[in-house]
Amino acid sequence: MIALTHIGTYLPERKISNLDLLNKFEVDESFIRNKIGVVYRTRKEVHEKASDLCIKSFENLQEQTPLNLEDVECCIVVTQNPDMNIPHTSAIVHGALGLPESCACFDISLGCSGYVYSLSVVTAFMQANGMSKGLLFTADPYSDIIDENDKNTALIFGDGATVSLLESDQPGLVALGFDFGSKGASYKSLISDGRLFMNGRAVFNFTASTVPISIRKLLEKLNLTKEQIDAWYLHQGSKYIVDTISTRLGLDRDKVVFDMYEYGNTVSSSIPLLLSSDLYKIQKGQKIGISGFGVGLSWASAILEKV
Amino acid sequence: MIALTHIGTYLPERKISNLDLLNKFEVDESFIRNKIGVVYRTRKEVHEKASDLCIKSFENLQEQTPLNLEDVECCIVVTQNPDMNIPHTSAIVHGALGLPESCACFDISLGCSGYVYSLSVVTAFMQANGMSKGLLFTADPYSDIIDENDKNTALIFGDGATVSLLESDQPGLVALGFDFGSKGASYKSLISDGRLFMNGRAVFNFTASTVPISIRKLLEKLNLTKEQIDAWYLHQGSKYIVDTISTRLGLDRDKVVFDMYEYGNTVSSSIPLLLSSDLYKIQKGQKIGISGFGVGLSWASAILEKV
Repeated sequence: MIALTHIGTYLPERKISNLDLLNKFEVDESFIRNKIGVVYRTRKEVHEKASDLCIKSFENLQEQTPLNLEDVECCIVVTQNPDMNIPHTSAIVHGALGLPESCACFDISLGCSGYVYSLSVVTAFMQANGMSKGLLFTADPYSDIIDENDKNTALIFGDGATVSLLESDQPGLVALGFDFGSKGASYKSLISDGRLFMNGRAVFNFTASTVPISIRKLLEKLNLTKEQIDAWYLHQGSKYIVDTISTRLGLDRDKVVFDMYEYGNTVSSSIPLLLSSDLYKIQKGQKIGISGFGVGLSWASAILEKV
Repeated sequence: MIALTHIGTYLPERKISNLDLLNKFEVDESFIRNKIGVVYRTRKEVHEKASDLCIKSFENLQEQTPLNLEDVECCIVVTQNPDMNIPHTSAIVHGALGLPESCACFDISLGCSGYVYSLSVVTAFMQANGMSKGLLFTADPYSDIIDENDKNTALIFGDGATVSLLESDQPGLVALGFDFGSKGASYKSLISDGRLFMNGRAVFNFTASTVPISIRKLLEKLNLTKEQIDAWYLHQGSKYIVDTISTRLGLDRDKVVFDMYEYGNTVSSSIPLLLSSDLYKIQKGQKIGISGFGVGLSWASAILEKV
């Protein structure tokens, strides 16, 4: 059984304040705080690439739990803003960290659903190949593709990265089950070929209608009620979307974690960033729900239990 | 147990002859036929994207084995030349084919080792999530990034795509084991940020030294000898590299499949293209070896058995 045992994170120190942009975008402070839920957006340095952010998150992991690099059997990066298209960013990270030659590396291309999907993909890959230690990175530096004059995206996205340590036979979070889905026919609502375009209304409507169904379906499949889940870590798309999903599902609001005011929507890093603060507080037997949604359009939900 | 049951393929009709380029690159016909092993290179139309090639390979699959689209539970695309960076190409394929909303989609970014890696990733993912039918596409249209004046790459790469149908509890090829590896520190030998660069000598040396070790290691792990393997499907990097690996391993040359004269090196599609011709001829109990290597630098080997 492969468990999520530690999470290293990186958020750039440099921040842009949305409060400086009220006039530019003709919005008020309440819109920034209560609707979007992003006051500051973290910004990497212009020359920094996805791999640089990954490496910084790994340094944070090493501070928490010193790893013997020779023990790392796989290194996977989730990104849609790779350093280059060729090679995969995981190869660059592999080289920079000095991981062993026997280490399996590949990238997974997914957006905001990427962490949940990849938890399933990577734990299954490790289990099938008898691996006991793996690194799952998330890093999607949207600052490289955002038009700072586009109100639909300029106030939302922040840069960041995380690395999840996955280990066999260790205390940690293990997945009880997943639900996956895709609406490829609607992919044009959120695209980038160098510059991000988002139809905010379409993405909101997709999320508000799809994610509650995914979570209900998953709970039913696992024979669980929402009351049996101790905390919810939903992708931090915006405060309004997290509020809407919570309301539609009738979730106890004290159980719904929200924390993006200080850094923004970090795409596939949002859920592991949230989880990293609470990981060591979750008690054996407690269950948490996670759900990611966005680019694709794509979604994935999971229930994890601390073992 | 998830088995590889059918393979759909697509090779563009349009071809460029390397024999027309003897003067341009100051090479003779023997070099083209016996060293590179590529006489013609397949070329997609300029406007065609990776997803278009995937869809054509799916049409070929449908001719072999009509699928009920509603039964497809996952759709994965292996590519490093996606239609766009956002969304993943699998989402575009999902929409174009009209796959169901419950279908899981993601892309895997890997080059010439991509098919072998992904066979492990996708079968493990399907097994862990109780899926019985999945589509694994490969499509890496290098014609979009090749400089036709660069002798190191212009004579080698062809466009193509494949789709492997993976099914539970069906007769087909199942993996007995895998060996994976990475030399991220050498990634600069093969890169593209819009234009491909390859240090042919470095990539050749890497392959010639690494791949035989990977295959030997795998055979040993599985307690098999090379004589127990009925056929070898090595990534078709060039004739010289397939010859070199075969010689270094002391393989029976009648068992080493070679077939790239008519289309070139199709990156992650090369192994499934080779396999597609023989898939239905492989007898129950027969074992085959596959190995992919390239971009990353990265390699993966597997032994498959017909069940």
